[in-house]
Amino acid sequence: MNIAVAQSGGPTCAINASLVGVFKQGFKTKKIDAVFGSINGIEGIINDELIDLKTVIRTNEDMELLRQTPSTMLGSCRYKLPDYEKDSVVYEKILSCLTKHRIEIFIYIGGNDSMDTVVKLSDYFERIGSDIKVIGVPKTIDNDLPVTDHTPGFGSAAKYVAASVQEIIRDSSVYSIDSVTIVEIMGRHAGWLAASTCMLKANGEEAPHLIYLPERSFSVKNFIEDVRKEQAKHKAVIIAVSEGIKIDPEEYPLESFRSGAEDVFGHKYLSGVGKCLERIIAAELNCKVRSIELNVMQRCSSHICSKTDIDEAEEIGAMALGAALSGNTGKMMCFKRVSDVPYAINIEMVDAREVANKEKFFPDKWINKAGNNVLPEAEKYFLPLIQGEVKIKMKNGMPVHFKR
Amino acid sequence: MNIAVAQSGGPTCAINASLVGVFKQGFKTKKIDAVFGSINGIEGIINDELIDLKTVIRTNEDMELLRQTPSTMLGSCRYKLPDYEKDSVVYEKILSCLTKHRIEIFIYIGGNDSMDTVVKLSDYFERIGSDIKVIGVPKTIDNDLPVTDHTPGFGSAAKYVAASVQEIIRDSSVYSIDSVTIVEIMGRHAGWLAASTCMLKANGEEAPHLIYLPERSFSVKNFIEDVRKEQAKHKAVIIAVSEGIKIDPEEYPLESFRSGAEDVFGHKYLSGVGKCLERIIAAELNCKVRSIELNVMQRCSSHICSKTDIDEAEEIGAMALGAALSGNTGKMMCFKRVSDVPYAINIEMVDAREVANKEKFFPDKWINKAGNNVLPEAEKYFLPLIQGEVKIKMKNGMPVHFKR
Repeated sequence: MNIAVAQSGGPTCAINASLVGVFKQGFKTKKIDAVFGSINGIEGIINDELIDLKTVIRTNEDMELLRQTPSTMLGSCRYKLPDYEKDSVVYEKILSCLTKHRIEIFIYIGGNDSMDTVVKLSDYFERIGSDIKVIGVPKTIDNDLPVTDHTPGFGSAAKYVAASVQEIIRDSSVYSIDSVTIVEIMGRHAGWLAASTCMLKANGEEAPHLIYLPERSFSVKNFIEDVRKEQAKHKAVIIAVSEGIKIDPEEYPLESFRSGAEDVFGHKYLSGVGKCLERIIAAELNCKVRSIELNVMQRCSSHICSKTDIDEAEEIGAMALGAALSGNTGKMMCFKRVSDVPYAINIEMVDAREVANKEKFFPDKWINKAGNNVLPEAEKYFLPLIQGEVKIKMKNGMPVHFKR
Repeated sequence: MNIAVAQSGGPTCAINASLVGVFKQGFKTKKIDAVFGSINGIEGIINDELIDLKTVIRTNEDMELLRQTPSTMLGSCRYKLPDYEKDSVVYEKILSCLTKHRIEIFIYIGGNDSMDTVVKLSDYFERIGSDIKVIGVPKTIDNDLPVTDHTPGFGSAAKYVAASVQEIIRDSSVYSIDSVTIVEIMGRHAGWLAASTCMLKANGEEAPHLIYLPERSFSVKNFIEDVRKEQAKHKAVIIAVSEGIKIDPEEYPLESFRSGAEDVFGHKYLSGVGKCLERIIAAELNCKVRSIELNVMQRCSSHICSKTDIDEAEEIGAMALGAALSGNTGKMMCFKRVSDVPYAINIEMVDAREVANKEKFFPDKWINKAGNNVLPEAEKYFLPLIQGEVKIKMKNGMPVHFKR
């Protein structure tokens, strides 16, 4: 028999490591003849665009390079399957492609949108009496998937953000004049990544002095007051803010900075919250102010990825295949934390229905009362996820990426 | 006798390494009793804010940490000395402070503005018959200082930019739809840093497909045509652009994106060229477009600094002190390249007058005829500067910074 694997949703530093996990495990399993990679997520199966992965991942060195290469080697998609009742044609195309290539297991690496695909496909195969198994592998830098302790990709993003914000703290502190620096961090609805900057306290940083998350409502009036208070204490005030915080246009008319565009899943492309807050500070307080958007570097800076994250991403990919081989379907693999110190996790399964289209928010108990910072208790959750460095292979002074 | 050292201008990853070079050399030199650090550049000498560096840099480990810490440990300034004829008071304050602390050598680490200070101060000391020597140590990520082959700080910035743009290339290539990604890179008047992205070709990248530098005039009409042509060849077009390119408001009325603010040296704070071009592409071509500003991370991302850069920065600092001890004054230390392969440089001296307030532009001979890319010949200039990685000391999964 053969198996297929695909990658979906936004890039991370760890999604190729999960692919390596599936591929290696498939290679080791005698009854699996070929591991096919589907180009651009589920679209590759719908359009019969598959590649036999052993023709592109040829050596152990290829696997090592793929582990340190960000983004998705097989491309990605944001395709959402229609309901079977409304449109069965695409399901029949998928069945036809999988049958043609003798594929009995499909592993889908993605976020909560991808788990919707895992649910729909596994339901479909059960409904028609097919034995094809579908298993999801979580991934997202947003860390917003339910049930799982955390998601592959998040640790590397958090490590980059922590290192960069620490460097920005140094950069912001050189001049003798007062300044405010706002760092905009990814997270549409869940503030995990912005919240993770609280880890800098473990290395003796006082900053970020303020952290704003979409989990709490945002008041421009309180914000200005918060900044004023911090300015009384610090020459260079550093603020971490989730891109997803909402400025009430009735309170402060700056909505024109927002893009109204939506993707096919109905997500708005948010951007520019940092810039909004910069203009507010410039208008309301008389000081030097700068906003910095960490942008896509947050999800693709594999040159400073977390070894824990990459190793876990590979392992959860391997275990997904194991779960399918044991007869499971419609499940997502997940991490259960056994202990913070020493850090220990188990890899288990959860019904993909409990994850599909759902979000997990940063816990309210870890946000301070004023809603402008994260409590020290959150540190022990975050810290294990960024531990360790991958020895990055370099050529000409630059990281080497795997290319197919 | 004692000596003083100060840091000035915008932060880099290498300016603390030059400080370490001065400090270590001072410590080794028997006739030097103390190395004083001046807080916030020359302002610390004017205001008599000095610290004895051995009270803060206590161990070899401190020195190692300082070498891997970005920005300026002593703070910085953008203070410009008045002409002596117009205002001699500040010169007398400087003399009084240096005399009080028995300081006979002043080492100023900075850019072309700082070299103006080196010229004015050394002229002043000669005029009044003082034996105090003033030597400049170059630093700027912009690489725009005359005479010297390159500037400390540039190699680390170029290494971060190369790694990040390569990661952005991976990130931009995941979806099946056409896209344009614009990366805005620092460089007000000189395009060295944006030009350095040509190094990615050495690692097999075709991108950036287009590189725009302030050394050539920019035409919006040609730009749109360039992008259209690249789109015919590449699904994901990647563009590197210097922040300093000028969009003619008569050709395209987008000047409102620019900030008109000026600093005390008359520099305009440029920002938003990437955003301008993003809006132009969105309006003129029907495709997904994103702009990314690498922002201050370019000058402070010491977690991926160039070992060559850091080592050279330390060495040129040490040699500056040597030059002063040999009786030189009013000079800036500079690199002379002996050979590209194998890479070899000498450290020499140049009259600071040849550098002060002057800029060195990216050579026209290395820009292609169309003015939208960099020629392969530039690679051999850039590549040696980003070689080698500093083993960064980590704690809790994050780099450790030196703090005084």
